Amino acid sequence: MFDQIAILAPGLLGASVARAARHYGVAKSIVLWARRPETRLQLKDQPWCDRVADSASEAVRNAQLVIICAPVDQIVPLASQIAPHLFPGAIVTDVGSVKGEICRLGDKTLRPPASSAYFVGSHPMAGSAQTGWEHGRADLFVGRVTFVTPLPDTDPKSIERVIAFWTALESVATTVDPDKHDEIVAHISHLPQVIASTLCASLAKKDVRWRNYSGGGLRDTTRIAGSDPRLWKTILEQNRDEVLRALRDYQEDLHGMERALANRDWLEVQAIMERGKAYRDQFRPIP
Amino acid sequence: MFDQIAILAPGLLGASVARAARHYGVAKSIVLWARRPETRLQLKDQPWCDRVADSASEAVRNAQLVIICAPVDQIVPLASQIAPHLFPGAIVTDVGSVKGEICRLGDKTLRPPASSAYFVGSHPMAGSAQTGWEHGRADLFVGRVTFVTPLPDTDPKSIERVIAFWTALESVATTVDPDKHDEIVAHISHLPQVIASTLCASLAKKDVRWRNYSGGGLRDTTRIAGSDPRLWKTILEQNRDEVLRALRDYQEDLHGMERALANRDWLEVQAIMERGKAYRDQFRPIP
Repeated sequence: MFDQIAILAPGLLGASVARAARHYGVAKSIVLWARRPETRLQLKDQPWCDRVADSASEAVRNAQLVIICAPVDQIVPLASQIAPHLFPGAIVTDVGSVKGEICRLGDKTLRPPASSAYFVGSHPMAGSAQTGWEHGRADLFVGRVTFVTPLPDTDPKSIERVIAFWTALESVATTVDPDKHDEIVAHISHLPQVIASTLCASLAKKDVRWRNYSGGGLRDTTRIAGSDPRLWKTILEQNRDEVLRALRDYQEDLHGMERALANRDWLEVQAIMERGKAYRDQFRPIP
Repeated sequence: MFDQIAILAPGLLGASVARAARHYGVAKSIVLWARRPETRLQLKDQPWCDRVADSASEAVRNAQLVIICAPVDQIVPLASQIAPHLFPGAIVTDVGSVKGEICRLGDKTLRPPASSAYFVGSHPMAGSAQTGWEHGRADLFVGRVTFVTPLPDTDPKSIERVIAFWTALESVATTVDPDKHDEIVAHISHLPQVIASTLCASLAKKDVRWRNYSGGGLRDTTRIAGSDPRLWKTILEQNRDEVLRALRDYQEDLHGMERALANRDWLEVQAIMERGKAYRDQFRPIP
């Protein structure tokens, strides 16, 4: 499908893209570049890596598709760094958790005369509290949604190629406007993260031995609080407005629950829980 | 260890107690009683059930240990119903999620002249969003904490017997004052439940298709929102004061997070997430 793809700054997602691309035969040649020399050395020994480049610019030279897997605040800088080295018609995508700014600036960065390549944003809804390329899995994207977030004037052929790429990895590709994407993930990903992290930070002020009494409930509810705080800081930074909106909505609803408890309005308490259960019970099953 | 135990109103927990008691050889004879005749008929066919009684009073007649597995608002009524039928020195325990009121009233209910039996509260920190005796598992308690919550003047021998019972099921028995128990579970169980249910109820007001885009994060964070709202209403009813206290503490911390986001205080945002991660990373591993 692609003669050569380049994966820049592979962590959990980038390594999973490489493994999946190999597994599904999506690229004849997979070139990787990592910022740290020690990582580059280790990547050379991986069966899902055909070549490790010494620089991002060199990695992308013959690539038809470039996947930037850096943290959200480093995606546009990398795109602008590689721009002069992309061949005409090459496609650049990413796996960042925020899309509005990245797509607008990524697009601008690649426009002529900088390059004749195209930027099409992506965001696979897959991951793990584990980070690092060592934890990559070829099946990470199977059955998971990947948002593909073109701008109104993004090259249609490039959008199709990016959709075909994620589909080949057995992901469920869904196109959506970048700003709409940011509103959606603020609710279904960034808000849960803020809630879980704050719950753990709040419980840390009590007797910490209590956590060892907990059953599965607290463990599941707070699993994502184990995620990397620096990565999340940059995500929340980039999606601040939407996250604040979602968080304030939630705080209002939590206040409603508090009021119902305070007023001993047990009908209302149960009604809130019924609405929550009805919502939760209809989640699409995933593999 | 016990010649005969009686399990009243078995749901997920009661059936798991029965299966585990059989598996670990803790009781020579296991007698069950369920409120619904159709359940009683089904229980008769289970290998972990030696006899099904037609009434709670009849079920407890020869039991050295009675485990009341009814919802929290029905535990004391059941205890008072069986009191005249307990033999002297019998022990009554329960599996309710709230302990203060239940232990005080349970104890009072069994005192002479009503009976010469002893009430010792229990609360195994195990369960599932699935309810119903059909989902019971012999290994449900393995490695999980069971709170045993005696009052200051509870019969010491009976406390030891109850601890030995849960320990035999491979649970980690921990004694704690009933009111302290209620404070602890308000934080590590009831608060996460309120948070998860309210998050789902809040998201239900947005485009409900969004939930199908979510990766593992939202799924895990909200899993317990699928629990039975009626059961939870009665739990929150009984532990209202402690839950309100825990919820208000959490709301304050969530407000702190909101303020940090609003002020673009990214150092503070990251610091909250670091504290959350430090707390989450130290959970005791469970099987």
